[in-house]
Amino acid sequence: MNPPKAIRNLIESFEKLPGIGLKTAQRLTFYLLHVPQEQLDEFSQAILNLKKNTVLCSVCFNVSEHDPCPICVDGNRERGTICVVEQPLDILALEKSGNYHGLYHVLHGAISPLENIGPDELYIKQLVDRVREQASDRVKELILATNPNMEGEATAMYIKNLISNLKFQISKLPRITRLGQGLPTGADLEYADETTLTRAIEGRREY
Amino acid sequence: MNPPKAIRNLIESFEKLPGIGLKTAQRLTFYLLHVPQEQLDEFSQAILNLKKNTVLCSVCFNVSEHDPCPICVDGNRERGTICVVEQPLDILALEKSGNYHGLYHVLHGAISPLENIGPDELYIKQLVDRVREQASDRVKELILATNPNMEGEATAMYIKNLISNLKFQISKLPRITRLGQGLPTGADLEYADETTLTRAIEGRREY
Repeated sequence: MNPPKAIRNLIESFEKLPGIGLKTAQRLTFYLLHVPQEQLDEFSQAILNLKKNTVLCSVCFNVSEHDPCPICVDGNRERGTICVVEQPLDILALEKSGNYHGLYHVLHGAISPLENIGPDELYIKQLVDRVREQASDRVKELILATNPNMEGEATAMYIKNLISNLKFQISKLPRITRLGQGLPTGADLEYADETTLTRAIEGRREY
Repeated sequence: MNPPKAIRNLIESFEKLPGIGLKTAQRLTFYLLHVPQEQLDEFSQAILNLKKNTVLCSVCFNVSEHDPCPICVDGNRERGTICVVEQPLDILALEKSGNYHGLYHVLHGAISPLENIGPDELYIKQLVDRVREQASDRVKELILATNPNMEGEATAMYIKNLISNLKFQISKLPRITRLGQGLPTGADLEYADETTLTRAIEGRREY
């Protein structure tokens, strides 16, 4: 027996999501059968409007309701610092930490030859333009906050080289930094991998 | 910074699903931002139509496109055997095993005082009616295939008592069975819990 088409359709849609396999897709679909139609209407509407009611900020390429986004127009933020992240979600995490008051730049991915993502698929050119063109608000620091994995490191390295090459075009190169690496809070030294420990020793500070 | 309303809405909708917390909801939502609008339209439509294009079979209460469902109208199935399950998903699993050729009855849950689910919230009365009323196709066997946990066992016990009480109303009571319990295929004896091992010993067979 095949389940009804309406059910198969939704199972297939759920299965396309990352980290959701057949079993979970089935479970979610059959769960939704017990839910009031209004909740399904809301869910359906939220998916339909997701991209229709959002735009990419033309300055930092974060997803936003307005262009430019609230962060880019916020007069209270340090306009000389740009934090470069892979995904809009990274901004959410950084903002929640509440300790960063500069601007952002979203690359929308990282360089990954295996997935056929090269520099041209990312908003890297636009970042270089931002560094080159800003006349009144000179970019003083570029924090490369791509993920500390192979793709993120490659992307950070690539951007660093591009920016360094600007030295003949702009009067003063921005300082380029990378997020601190080491043990995460609450970690167990015993279970930390070698690279993390190496980074933690390299990044040790006066106490 | 709050994410745009369209994004917050979808995150909230995902969070209402079982087993999906804030982080997963965020991840799924931001993933969908990178997906073509057509896929979002399909997904949205599938959710909208889930309940609109399905009905409960008035005989076995399985979800189906038609009433009665394909299994209940299938002339090739043994009409004297009814397998009682908690959820439509259980039918999917049993059908996939391909070794059951009788009919089904979906209770849509199990008795669970903690969750305020009593016998009246389930399709138990309808099951008793089926056993009592079927004149031409007498129910010869009732397989109580509720889950082998506390709620499922309580439900099976409750149904068994109800059916036994029919002895003054119908000429011959159906045989009542419960799915075999023991070690699942591929299991490791060493890691099996005591109850499972007890059941496995009780249910041992000639070899």
